[in-house]
Amino acid sequence: MTTNPLHKLMNPASIATFGAGNNFLKMGTMHALSITKDGYAGKFYPVHPKDATVLGHKAYRTVEELPEAPDLALIVIPSEHVIATIDSLGKRGTRYAIIITAGFKETGESGRSMERELIETAERHGIRFIGPNCMGIVNTAISLNTTVMELRDKPGHLGFASQSGTYITQSLKYLGKRGIRFSKALSVGNEADISIIDALEYLGEDEQTKAISLYIEGIRDVPRFLDVARRITPHKPVIAQYVGGSKAGARSGKSHTGAMAGPDHIYDGIFRQAGIIRVDSIEDLYGQGWALATQPFLRGRRVGVITNSGGPGTAMSHVCEGGGMEIPVFSEKLQESIRPMVLPHAPRGNPVDITFSFDMNALTTEIPLLVMESGEIDGIVLHGAMNSGFVKALYPHIADLAQGVTIEDMVNELNANLNLSRSAGLPREYGIPMLLSSFLDRDDNLTEFYEDNDIPVFDSPEKTARAMVTLNRYRLVRQREAHGAPPPVRRSADAASIIERARKAGRAALDEHEAKLILAAYGAPITEERLVASADEAAAAAEALGYPAVLKACSSEILHKTEKGLVRLGLASAADVSAAFEDVQKAAGTRVPAIVYRMVKGSRELVAGMTRHEGIGPCVMFGLGGIYTELLRDVTFRVAPITAADAREMTRELRGSGILGEFRGMPAADIDEIARLLLALGAVAQNHPEVREIDINPILISGAHPVAVDALIALEA
Amino acid sequence: MTTNPLHKLMNPASIATFGAGNNFLKMGTMHALSITKDGYAGKFYPVHPKDATVLGHKAYRTVEELPEAPDLALIVIPSEHVIATIDSLGKRGTRYAIIITAGFKETGESGRSMERELIETAERHGIRFIGPNCMGIVNTAISLNTTVMELRDKPGHLGFASQSGTYITQSLKYLGKRGIRFSKALSVGNEADISIIDALEYLGEDEQTKAISLYIEGIRDVPRFLDVARRITPHKPVIAQYVGGSKAGARSGKSHTGAMAGPDHIYDGIFRQAGIIRVDSIEDLYGQGWALATQPFLRGRRVGVITNSGGPGTAMSHVCEGGGMEIPVFSEKLQESIRPMVLPHAPRGNPVDITFSFDMNALTTEIPLLVMESGEIDGIVLHGAMNSGFVKALYPHIADLAQGVTIEDMVNELNANLNLSRSAGLPREYGIPMLLSSFLDRDDNLTEFYEDNDIPVFDSPEKTARAMVTLNRYRLVRQREAHGAPPPVRRSADAASIIERARKAGRAALDEHEAKLILAAYGAPITEERLVASADEAAAAAEALGYPAVLKACSSEILHKTEKGLVRLGLASAADVSAAFEDVQKAAGTRVPAIVYRMVKGSRELVAGMTRHEGIGPCVMFGLGGIYTELLRDVTFRVAPITAADAREMTRELRGSGILGEFRGMPAADIDEIARLLLALGAVAQNHPEVREIDINPILISGAHPVAVDALIALEA
Repeated sequence: MTTNPLHKLMNPASIATFGAGNNFLKMGTMHALSITKDGYAGKFYPVHPKDATVLGHKAYRTVEELPEAPDLALIVIPSEHVIATIDSLGKRGTRYAIIITAGFKETGESGRSMERELIETAERHGIRFIGPNCMGIVNTAISLNTTVMELRDKPGHLGFASQSGTYITQSLKYLGKRGIRFSKALSVGNEADISIIDALEYLGEDEQTKAISLYIEGIRDVPRFLDVARRITPHKPVIAQYVGGSKAGARSGKSHTGAMAGPDHIYDGIFRQAGIIRVDSIEDLYGQGWALATQPFLRGRRVGVITNSGGPGTAMSHVCEGGGMEIPVFSEKLQESIRPMVLPHAPRGNPVDITFSFDMNALTTEIPLLVMESGEIDGIVLHGAMNSGFVKALYPHIADLAQGVTIEDMVNELNANLNLSRSAGLPREYGIPMLLSSFLDRDDNLTEFYEDNDIPVFDSPEKTARAMVTLNRYRLVRQREAHGAPPPVRRSADAASIIERARKAGRAALDEHEAKLILAAYGAPITEERLVASADEAAAAAEALGYPAVLKACSSEILHKTEKGLVRLGLASAADVSAAFEDVQKAAGTRVPAIVYRMVKGSRELVAGMTRHEGIGPCVMFGLGGIYTELLRDVTFRVAPITAADAREMTRELRGSGILGEFRGMPAADIDEIARLLLALGAVAQNHPEVREIDINPILISGAHPVAVDALIALEA
Repeated sequence: MTTNPLHKLMNPASIATFGAGNNFLKMGTMHALSITKDGYAGKFYPVHPKDATVLGHKAYRTVEELPEAPDLALIVIPSEHVIATIDSLGKRGTRYAIIITAGFKETGESGRSMERELIETAERHGIRFIGPNCMGIVNTAISLNTTVMELRDKPGHLGFASQSGTYITQSLKYLGKRGIRFSKALSVGNEADISIIDALEYLGEDEQTKAISLYIEGIRDVPRFLDVARRITPHKPVIAQYVGGSKAGARSGKSHTGAMAGPDHIYDGIFRQAGIIRVDSIEDLYGQGWALATQPFLRGRRVGVITNSGGPGTAMSHVCEGGGMEIPVFSEKLQESIRPMVLPHAPRGNPVDITFSFDMNALTTEIPLLVMESGEIDGIVLHGAMNSGFVKALYPHIADLAQGVTIEDMVNELNANLNLSRSAGLPREYGIPMLLSSFLDRDDNLTEFYEDNDIPVFDSPEKTARAMVTLNRYRLVRQREAHGAPPPVRRSADAASIIERARKAGRAALDEHEAKLILAAYGAPITEERLVASADEAAAAAEALGYPAVLKACSSEILHKTEKGLVRLGLASAADVSAAFEDVQKAAGTRVPAIVYRMVKGSRELVAGMTRHEGIGPCVMFGLGGIYTELLRDVTFRVAPITAADAREMTRELRGSGILGEFRGMPAADIDEIARLLLALGAVAQNHPEVREIDINPILISGAHPVAVDALIALEA
């Protein structure tokens, strides 16, 4: 357990409110009402300048008048008074606050300066706080709700941290109607002190929380985010939505909480690196998070599909298979055991479709039991469990024919042979996840029962199947190689002196030979080459290195060497090489050194590189090369420093990763050598902040061995 | 208007039921109850073997006893009695039926034979029918519902045709709760007579229907489907979900309605060819269909985002931009006009975020009005309209403080300055679509009002934004080139005789030269080449065609020519060519003719081909070539015959389509020539059923000109 401040902030024994009064249409009052009405059992101290009581509780005019230093202060007063209040609280001894008030960094320069002063004031007193510009928190374990909407659901297992307050206020009723229950939820606002990373760390340590969902517009400290997330994701699933990566998304996020966004593809890499599953919508953040929070870990990729209808069964099969799972045909034995429970022609080979039967016991318990018992599947998706919702949809038609039979009678009759507890207990009993799909929401008693007993019921078959695919994505996260901290790499003095020399000469870039030497200093496989200054030296180099030879002009001043005739390939003899040297001098129009290496043969081309991103740091890139590089942008990213495991994962993430396997008669590429090359990029970035950007293009796979054939290193200005 | 049988079947003046009685738990009775209870005003004739009345209506023991021939028969009796009933109905003069009964083709051989007999019987009497194995139909224009669940919503504009009955029964309450209303809906079951294509054609002609959604497990007559859809999609949007393309999906579909599925990527092509927008879930089929059915056509891609919360605004912007739309920054003038309606620091540059304001009139009417008026956007997405849902979420907190103020009072107070009719009328007034997002469902009076007035309200910001992207996809469909019927292509006698000769010789394939001649006969650009039988002929050919030359062994018997040393490239002189001829003879180990052509230069490689698919017919393929072809599978398909417009669209659909533009100093490829090549593939397929498969690999782009450099044609056995 860390000393994360949220352990205390989220569990206060007393709360003082600032800004709550008796006008229940004021924001401050609404926040306070959630504290007083939703079951919080701690002490409640409203601070109010005038009123003697607030919401029926004795009020205090000032911080000083409070009977004790409150554990937590909830602040919803005009922004110009926030700093003084924090100061008073600090003097009194309060150490935690939630600042709901907006009007700070997100509004421009004067707000930014006020936020800085707020931070300084809080730091001076050792006060840790959430906000400003947030919606507060929810801790269902102690029935504490500081948002503005009612929340009286029983505690759940989904931990939620959000850079948007709406997602734990406006959506509370939405969640209740879908049976999704938080363990804890935090709206982090401007993150002036406590950040979404702190929230993640806290939720990772919180026992009530079984899965974590994050709504992200921008991460401020990416290395710490990675570090925290990597410690959590091997044992607790984390999913995230990121919306800052588009132009308009970034603009909107900035004016929302002042968040600094980064490119979408970099965040893709960050999430992969962290073992975080990325989703595309708030709906999935809730729903798929809920599936992860309630179900046992999936042990394999085989799904059993059980339905009362062909359409949903087909659709769920389609989505699971498209998501990399398998819908195995059930064994004859299993099919035979299912046969007595279904109509004669009903499909039972997976999907099982009970068709026009209304035997809900078979659908919800007996068939799932047989399927789990068989050992033939690892997870179940089930569509069509229903009772009262169906009766209610039918009843208006039969009310006048029903001869005194009520809706309740019909529901009870249909419930008579059901064993819902057994059904909902199956996932725990067998350690096999089960997810339901129904078009009938909590108006149906079965939907209600399952949701209340931690079996998610989604409102469409595809969503159910996608949640199963998400469970499988988490299975793959758990299976991946351990990602320890990246090993420290010692700074190369040779590399440093090359860079130093170039900078002293006022150069903005290194030449190709220098760039390769630096990469080689950190273990990257490069062409074995010599720098030559004359035709004779060139010929001698080729004689030593072998034919066919390549000769290239080597200068940091010259770009587009090929187009200018400064690259000569396939030179077959010493005479050819020495003639090529002279040709290149002519083409360059000036005396220029050259490099000579033995030509690398290989038709598999890749690229790799390093770029630095504001707010993120150095990132390592790996991708398909050749003519289609820019067209297809088949690339993947990681934030440096990276581990060998990261590098190996990168080699598997390209759409065209198959090129690295045995391919068209060529041997599989040596993945460890590629990893060394990628690690070198990270190491250069870490050890040499003067290096702005690295571009290796192409890397050729020669036999099984990757070789950096051309490289460019640009320096910071 | 066509003579589509559904125009009459869907509008009967009288309906007879078979299988309906007085036990309301029987399927037949449930179906009948929907007819008698949901507002249908036509005549209702229950046929029952024993009871004198059924559901309070006079019953008839036999078809013969009916007072007239009913316009429509609804049949829910055991399968073994269906044929006799159809026969009686036919004799009596009934011409339309819906056969709900299952147990036909989908159950195996005996069911298949029974279905054939059913078809023959119906044909003999000129009876057109839906089913068997279906759930019936809904025609809201005449309040006719033949499914088993209650449906009393007012008529809508979404036409729905489905190969799963569940999607117009189990989902009816689901749809009602989301404010989605059908115009007509049809469950087509086994499609023994009337098919989903007939349903599509009918919905295309139905004036009440403004958009069409199709749930598809497999299309039986793809050419007719294309023909029908292409006539509809230029003026009425069609969206479709296809789930038959995975292994398990195909298996499941087959046992569901006996549908014949095809590969997913081919269906992608079919939908593009038809101008149909593909979606991935039943939820989108309903929700995005509803957006298309209710909103004016989008005129451009600029979206205005209006919210009361940063999170949803950022998320909607992100999704719209990711979907190819633009979120333009509003002009200073527009921002100034919005300023008085929002709090001082509220973002108003697009997204507009009214933040902590509860001014619903500004959010729902005044700001959208200004934004539409400005001419700066083409569509609006709006999050946060709410009233009673919010009050209800708040009220439990304040009930005891409210001093007699009720929920209704608060709702009315908040409604006081609202002009919802104006707000909901804006899309029609300005011809600009507006889609809403709210976490509060129809428990909120604003959600209810908008939905009831044809403004879709989605339960997540991302779904709202995706629906706007779908409107934009339809804009692009409407903008595309007119797709007339493919022009008939005259059969080439030369091509026919080449094929005839090969078949007579018992060959399974043509040789490369023959294959190219056939392609050239239909207009494809091929290498200018000569077939040679001696070294002298080879040298003479090269002299005539130019250098560098290529010489290849030419035989339908030899595969993998390159690997066997039977291809010689870059031959520079007559001597080289003639030596190469002799070399190839040796390598082949037998006397073999060769082709000679001038080597084609071009680094851009593509592939094209033709394959035949069961149940679909011949398909034309176009894709990226070169080393990554199999790895990246960047390919697109169309069903032959294709038009030049189809072919041009194909060239734009690859992820790597940019390669055909100006690229790395190379000129843009001649798209019309590529189109000619693709048209040739379709024409060969149409004119020569003996051709099983064509594979052109590679096509090189030489300068701007595509050239088929190698080609293989396989023949049917």
